[in-house]
Amino acid sequence: MGLFSKDIKTMNDLFVHALRDIYYAENQILKALPEMIDKATDAQLKQAFQSHLAETKNQVKRVEQVFQMHGVEAKGIDCPAIDGIIEEADDVAGEIADKEVLNAALASAAQAVEHYEIARYGTLIAWAKQLGRNDCANVLQRNLDEEKAADKKLTEIAEARLNFKAAS
Amino acid sequence: MGLFSKDIKTMNDLFVHALRDIYYAENQILKALPEMIDKATDAQLKQAFQSHLAETKNQVKRVEQVFQMHGVEAKGIDCPAIDGIIEEADDVAGEIADKEVLNAALASAAQAVEHYEIARYGTLIAWAKQLGRNDCANVLQRNLDEEKAADKKLTEIAEARLNFKAAS
Repeated sequence: MGLFSKDIKTMNDLFVHALRDIYYAENQILKALPEMIDKATDAQLKQAFQSHLAETKNQVKRVEQVFQMHGVEAKGIDCPAIDGIIEEADDVAGEIADKEVLNAALASAAQAVEHYEIARYGTLIAWAKQLGRNDCANVLQRNLDEEKAADKKLTEIAEARLNFKAAS
Repeated sequence: MGLFSKDIKTMNDLFVHALRDIYYAENQILKALPEMIDKATDAQLKQAFQSHLAETKNQVKRVEQVFQMHGVEAKGIDCPAIDGIIEEADDVAGEIADKEVLNAALASAAQAVEHYEIARYGTLIAWAKQLGRNDCANVLQRNLDEEKAADKKLTEIAEARLNFKAAS
């Protein structure tokens, strides 16, 4: 999409724009997760991040599948939102001296990422359906379901152990 | 919090850091909403943004109340996440030629903002409870409930009218 030009003229253009946004975002998350895995010292949190890294690889493939089904080139566009969310996660992690406090902060940072994706996939699915592309919506729904489950899992780990250990 | 220093040593420090993050975020949203109200041409969407502007003013006051209850200075810290989310909303809006498509995109952008806040308030409430500050958690819960309701309202408006009008 060209800067300062009005390239989005239709709902279909908007859908493709949002698909390119989440494609970029998923790829940035793919790059960020290994560092989060390294930093996490709680075994359950590390395991949750490792599982989500494997899931994210599949999610990228599903987004590529939707590009193909929709007949458009699979490419990303800059997404300042996910860049900002990841930058903030790095900034906070860099300021934390205690490893248990860091685990709690890492879980929280990951949940901000999940929520960004939940918002975006929710929109993409609604727009795909409006465009008569229930086939695309169904593929995207699998990613949304995984993001929601990952967010729920992080809440469980944080509330069952990380927050307690961080406050002890 | 000092750059490159490890200023977050305890769960309480992390809680205060996150409170300053959401305080900055709410204030940025307060600045961004009037422009979104101006751009929205759908009456229900405009009304939803106007209601949320009034709610956001109260949310800022509640965060200030939590600072006071917790005995720390009410101040914000840079939050690259919300800056990125708002920047992305501006970028996309600037690329859209059709006003109905713009309404659908504005609703989606606002939902990304809501989801960021849902993630952050969820974390803040869990941390407040862990720190034995159920009083702070109760105040923050009111903001979380409003964010969730605002997100749900936007989904309803988008699915009942905006997406249809944008695709027509």
